[in-house]
Amino acid sequence: MNPVGKPGKTGILMPVEVALARLLETADAARIVERERLPLAQAQGRVLADDLLSTLDLPPWPNSAMDGYALRVADWTGEPLSVSQKIFAGQAPVALEPGTCARIFTGAPVPAGADCVEMQENAEVQADGRVRFSEKLSPEQNIRPQGQETTVGELILPAGTVLGPIELGLAASLGCAELEVIRKVRVAVLSTGDELVEPGQALGPGQIYNSNRVLLCSWLQRLGCEVIDAGILPDDLDATRARLGGLKDVDLILSTGGVSVGEADFLGIALREEGELSLWKLAIKPGKPLTFGHFRGVPVIGLPGNPASTLVTFALLARPYLLRLQGVEQVEPLKIQVPAGFDWPVAGNRREYLRGRLENGRAVIYKNQSSGVLRSAAWADGLVEVLEDRTLVAGDAVYFIALSEVLG
Amino acid sequence: MNPVGKPGKTGILMPVEVALARLLETADAARIVERERLPLAQAQGRVLADDLLSTLDLPPWPNSAMDGYALRVADWTGEPLSVSQKIFAGQAPVALEPGTCARIFTGAPVPAGADCVEMQENAEVQADGRVRFSEKLSPEQNIRPQGQETTVGELILPAGTVLGPIELGLAASLGCAELEVIRKVRVAVLSTGDELVEPGQALGPGQIYNSNRVLLCSWLQRLGCEVIDAGILPDDLDATRARLGGLKDVDLILSTGGVSVGEADFLGIALREEGELSLWKLAIKPGKPLTFGHFRGVPVIGLPGNPASTLVTFALLARPYLLRLQGVEQVEPLKIQVPAGFDWPVAGNRREYLRGRLENGRAVIYKNQSSGVLRSAAWADGLVEVLEDRTLVAGDAVYFIALSEVLG
Repeated sequence: MNPVGKPGKTGILMPVEVALARLLETADAARIVERERLPLAQAQGRVLADDLLSTLDLPPWPNSAMDGYALRVADWTGEPLSVSQKIFAGQAPVALEPGTCARIFTGAPVPAGADCVEMQENAEVQADGRVRFSEKLSPEQNIRPQGQETTVGELILPAGTVLGPIELGLAASLGCAELEVIRKVRVAVLSTGDELVEPGQALGPGQIYNSNRVLLCSWLQRLGCEVIDAGILPDDLDATRARLGGLKDVDLILSTGGVSVGEADFLGIALREEGELSLWKLAIKPGKPLTFGHFRGVPVIGLPGNPASTLVTFALLARPYLLRLQGVEQVEPLKIQVPAGFDWPVAGNRREYLRGRLENGRAVIYKNQSSGVLRSAAWADGLVEVLEDRTLVAGDAVYFIALSEVLG
Repeated sequence: MNPVGKPGKTGILMPVEVALARLLETADAARIVERERLPLAQAQGRVLADDLLSTLDLPPWPNSAMDGYALRVADWTGEPLSVSQKIFAGQAPVALEPGTCARIFTGAPVPAGADCVEMQENAEVQADGRVRFSEKLSPEQNIRPQGQETTVGELILPAGTVLGPIELGLAASLGCAELEVIRKVRVAVLSTGDELVEPGQALGPGQIYNSNRVLLCSWLQRLGCEVIDAGILPDDLDATRARLGGLKDVDLILSTGGVSVGEADFLGIALREEGELSLWKLAIKPGKPLTFGHFRGVPVIGLPGNPASTLVTFALLARPYLLRLQGVEQVEPLKIQVPAGFDWPVAGNRREYLRGRLENGRAVIYKNQSSGVLRSAAWADGLVEVLEDRTLVAGDAVYFIALSEVLG
């Protein structure tokens, strides 16, 4: 594909939305269709495979919104009424005896013949057990009609819905004990970089600890993926080919770091030999170099290796790709406009995602926006978006993306 | 405790912040101190038990922010320099030979004697292999100094931090392979209500499906709790006592529904007999009745049973309680001020949490805000807060709480 975008210091920069559109197009073409049927308790974080239609009216019958008394408005003459039955939630009432009322509790079915419920606070029980109503009564008051919330056949959740606690609770309220979901996306995570050492080991000269492995593996788990931890890529072409070739039944190889270097870039060589490799220079900061291609038909996304860059490019590009693979339509995080609490005097040629917080309603940013470690992100509540070619003064509107929107 | 707040239609209503303060005070007194040591990959969603201090400088040595050439500014006379070594990330350089430059890649240590890095785009390699630099060079350019992001002994994450992918990645970058975390909170979930039937079974007359069990169990799992599913409470006092008494080693009993009814309220009777029971009427909608007490010393929170009420009271009261039990300081969700996209002509005496979305930056609300099912919440992206005694016209500011902020 030809470069798209406008020239940056080091070549043509691709706008974030162009890169996202290309990734989503590829994901659309590779949609996962295999599915499995799971009990609700195991379906959390998974994606609904079929539209969920209601097989019930909810409520299934008119029920009481209050603890009180059910009666017929026409029977209310100002004289007290005797109580002919008591109806708890879960009980099936008999038809209301004319000229009487029924004691009724919240959620209980309203008996046939009654057309209103008066709350107990407005009812006075006399010594003889009869009940006096003093307020004006209106038909339908405090009654939730049958089907008020849902009627049989209505679309409740469309295919492609991510199932969280709310969606699972909603499915349960319709009596579903199991749901058909798309099978888990299988993602192999590998790190490249001779300088990387796993935590717990001693650092040699020139070495640093690998933070992206745990960042991405734990994040992918939250997203409901099956994670294949493919370790640190060996520094050798044959071993690289063997490692990649050993990743069977994988939907995506997600790598971090290294591909931009060129010399000693065995991942890049392996992809060029047995697949395809595009190196994108994105108009994003932190971020910029992104690899997209495949190895023997398996898609590969290579994120930049600086942790803050890995975070931002995973959140804004790889996460949407993984959601769309499962058929999720709405893959971009919620952005909320807030006033900036900082000045931005020099326009950049890349779109910046600053690690920030809200203070008194304004977006403030971490003092050190270096992409080298995750301190800024651990401090932050969200990403503050500053568009390319923009300057800002405090009070100007910026978009804020809460980290909770992309982490789950 | 005496009622606090102002009179509502049905008695004194307790403001949400008063209820929250009481719950947090109780949680503070019952802080969990038992801890366990976990590998990073298993620590997701858990709470850090001790302050995490850095044992490293990061970067551990001055390193290159670019692919390019390292040299000493004083050696640059306009004449080309020969390349005396090549330094990849992960390699330990030797001291720079005076009057030469070193080929260097991003992340590699800057050799002793070099004080700047010039990016390769501004360097011209001649036919004889020597490199000509044409732009002005400044000391420290493109060098990330040692300790720029972190120095030994700095506080990186305070005790009480919830560990997500970012915090785990940050700990990994410091070489931590394991962390001390607070043990899981053990929460028993039980539902009350004779009308409840589990999904998958047939509905009898007057019965509805239990949606709160899966809502709360899946939510608690996301929050890193150990969930004891205690089922539907039996409709019998002895059986209720036996069920409650059987919940051993539990930090909280979380029940939904029922306690407000009074008659046939076996949970309430059991608590009054062998513990304590406060019935709060909260100035919250959906919500209002909240039970707080204990059974044989085990704290009990009883949420209202209508699903939307369960959702809102869990999000705003029970979730903070559970986080605080583990020592988390910041337990309230991020609220962002946005303009209302609706009118609110009649002030209520309870604070409303409307299920809403943002459309063109404005909060819009689901047409049916009934608390009976979760459809409004599944449609919504967040809760729109309308304060008690407030009216609104479109454009007035309201607070928006993204659901992602409370669900994870």
